[in-house]
Amino acid sequence: MAELEMQEHPVLRAERAALERWCRGDPSGFLEISADDVGYFEPFLWQRIDGRAALATHYEALRGQVKVRSFEILDPRIVESGEMVLLSYRFRSTGETGVATHWQASEVYRLGPQGPRIVHTHWSLPQSDAE
Amino acid sequence: MAELEMQEHPVLRAERAALERWCRGDPSGFLEISADDVGYFEPFLWQRIDGRAALATHYEALRGQVKVRSFEILDPRIVESGEMVLLSYRFRSTGETGVATHWQASEVYRLGPQGPRIVHTHWSLPQSDAE
Repeated sequence: MAELEMQEHPVLRAERAALERWCRGDPSGFLEISADDVGYFEPFLWQRIDGRAALATHYEALRGQVKVRSFEILDPRIVESGEMVLLSYRFRSTGETGVATHWQASEVYRLGPQGPRIVHTHWSLPQSDAE
Repeated sequence: MAELEMQEHPVLRAERAALERWCRGDPSGFLEISADDVGYFEPFLWQRIDGRAALATHYEALRGQVKVRSFEILDPRIVESGEMVLLSYRFRSTGETGVATHWQASEVYRLGPQGPRIVHTHWSLPQSDAE
């Protein structure tokens, strides 16, 4: 799939850069672009993690553990108004053994003087991977 | 838990009203407050459903099938800027047999002249229900 870098939305570009680091086991990419008041849902914990400090603790426990060989962002969709930007996409990650995992992702970013910052993240594992 | 209706955010009030109808098998509450450009993630389908017409088709297939005896909205969180309002919460639904199901919900609403309209919905079933 051809990608024209110049046309990529700044939020998608920020997300992709953070994902590239995440998939190499480095959660700092996401942490650096998370707002102080970030909220975070993932499939392995019912509770929402609230605030950057709590998220940092959570992410540090995962440092070095994520080993994704390749990933695809599918059907990215941007909805924006004022300083708020919603990004949602399907995600396929391929692990070292070649097994693929299918995710749904919703991110809400707030644009600010330092660039886009994540105020909310919602990752989930759907029960079906049918395309 | 005491609720002071006057203090409830209009978006949470709209969501709760739609949930009450949904849990009685009537998906029209959510459809009526969905924007034309709504996007929708749920646990049973990897694909995002895009647009109100497609969502209406999806919802109609569920009409009369949802039978939730009671539900709880836990840890609702609102983040707003301009016309965009993010609502996230944990959700517990109790079915007719008394079995509880645990969900995570993220909704992005856009405020407009007709009231709040949903531009994005993300429902998921976490793998853990630990509180």
